[in-house]
Amino acid sequence: MKEFELIKHFFTEQAVKRKDVLLGIGDDCAVVASPENQNIVVTTDTLVAGIHFPLETSPRAIGHKAVAVNLSDIAAMGAKPSWLSLAITLPEVNNDWLTEFSLGVFELCEYYNVQLIGGDTTQGPLSITITAQGLTPEGKYLTRSGAKAGDWLYVTGELGDAALALQHYKKQVSVNYDFVDKIKAKLDYPMPRVLAGQTLREYASAAIDLSDGLLADLGHICRASNVGANIVLNAIPLSDIMQESLLFDDAISLALSGGDDYELLFTVSEDNKVGMETALSHVGTPVTCIGQINASQTISTTLNNKPVPIKNTGFEHFSVK
Amino acid sequence: MKEFELIKHFFTEQAVKRKDVLLGIGDDCAVVASPENQNIVVTTDTLVAGIHFPLETSPRAIGHKAVAVNLSDIAAMGAKPSWLSLAITLPEVNNDWLTEFSLGVFELCEYYNVQLIGGDTTQGPLSITITAQGLTPEGKYLTRSGAKAGDWLYVTGELGDAALALQHYKKQVSVNYDFVDKIKAKLDYPMPRVLAGQTLREYASAAIDLSDGLLADLGHICRASNVGANIVLNAIPLSDIMQESLLFDDAISLALSGGDDYELLFTVSEDNKVGMETALSHVGTPVTCIGQINASQTISTTLNNKPVPIKNTGFEHFSVK
Repeated sequence: MKEFELIKHFFTEQAVKRKDVLLGIGDDCAVVASPENQNIVVTTDTLVAGIHFPLETSPRAIGHKAVAVNLSDIAAMGAKPSWLSLAITLPEVNNDWLTEFSLGVFELCEYYNVQLIGGDTTQGPLSITITAQGLTPEGKYLTRSGAKAGDWLYVTGELGDAALALQHYKKQVSVNYDFVDKIKAKLDYPMPRVLAGQTLREYASAAIDLSDGLLADLGHICRASNVGANIVLNAIPLSDIMQESLLFDDAISLALSGGDDYELLFTVSEDNKVGMETALSHVGTPVTCIGQINASQTISTTLNNKPVPIKNTGFEHFSVK
Repeated sequence: MKEFELIKHFFTEQAVKRKDVLLGIGDDCAVVASPENQNIVVTTDTLVAGIHFPLETSPRAIGHKAVAVNLSDIAAMGAKPSWLSLAITLPEVNNDWLTEFSLGVFELCEYYNVQLIGGDTTQGPLSITITAQGLTPEGKYLTRSGAKAGDWLYVTGELGDAALALQHYKKQVSVNYDFVDKIKAKLDYPMPRVLAGQTLREYASAAIDLSDGLLADLGHICRASNVGANIVLNAIPLSDIMQESLLFDDAISLALSGGDDYELLFTVSEDNKVGMETALSHVGTPVTCIGQINASQTISTTLNNKPVPIKNTGFEHFSVK
């Protein structure tokens, strides 16, 4: 296992040195200063090779994505990411692989001023578990449980591109060659909506990040908030690539049930609607209103004001509850 | 993956409900209150099936051990454990297995008032990653780097039993049938020295938990503190079982290089020696002085005041540096 001790060196050198990290990598624990008048948010996500990313994914993309999916959870709480712990299990020590992987990890860390404070390296089938922490002013954080009937339903960005890339990868759809790199970047290098999340802290009533697909994640909000929702299908933001690659029905289906978007889904009261839209335009995050929360306890979809039944969307689990 | 969503239920019900956990399992992140005038210690450890525990290990023991190895790191910092995040990767959903595993996890959590605040469940080869956090008064924590020439070297408990159990398991040694359960318990259900660690905060100059073996872990202290050490081999505490099962040389060799003890190795100045011994006897933790720190930059061993060369101890890595 000595080789595995050595690979720790790949993760010891990093550009980010936060003042609140009193002791970093290299002891039995890291030590961080407890921030005044703030709460700490904590999330853990595992990526397993072949399940959460195709086996052929580049090590740099794996490193990026492992950090991104965790920061996306922190963004959904409206918090500011601060510290990461990285546990990586590798079949063998491969210097080139580790160099690229750590590049992917540290690019996002530097961008968001997040410090890697520790971790573990073990031998076994490839998998990465990251625990990420973030800070938020005391009592000020977004949850899944604050949505109220009448609130408007919004998403950031455009939906379905990552799922389209995965379908292209699995040869289930054919995407124009010119578009492949762009949608592959959406799948491999998602950018968590960290700044948007912090901005939403002041405006949103509930939020979640889109990892399981729009319907499934909206289901989480509805269950936690004890409400229902209607989605206006023709309002769902689709990229030009989606619109050119798929028929409308297929594109909407992918946007509803495909995962890996790492956009934010959130609800806003009528009173906060304009303020939120102004604030998010200031931070440069595109948002789209895609429906409204109601008291029905179910999720419905409409197209041109007509109800459309939900099928094959992964949403059955919630509707039968 | 819906089945894997369901298994979250195994980890949602728990006896420990800490006041500083503002939002537990079930949202994008957990939220904890930032403790006043305290530092937070953070550690991450992964256990991979077949590498960190034999494949046949009972699920309850796996759950116990996954928590124990992390709390042991927190003990080595002199901190009090508070919150856990659990990432578990499983080949398949097996209710009996999960029931037993979660029992093992929660037994230790309840014992130390530690709350599970989140995690992730994924499909893949069996492995468990836990990130554990703990609290310690501001600026008051033990590190590996505080040992000074002249300090006394101590260990808690007895060394080598877990390694003996592993050798017995691998059929490399034969252990009397009456003893097997006892040493197997040391391997499968290590008890982290949490109370001893907190007590040592006031007395020790450096500390580490014994996971890699006495010589390797003493090497970590020596490197971090820029010192050397001498171990008095006949002072190393061995259990009756070790003494009856192995010849003295073999027993000492196992105590020096076997891992998985999860005892604390620490250094104490001459001035703090008596105070430390009194305090630890009050909390019921047996300790033994096994040598002394010196300025040599190497680790040596003596037996009956005569130098003994170190061989086959896993210590070459440090000695050749």
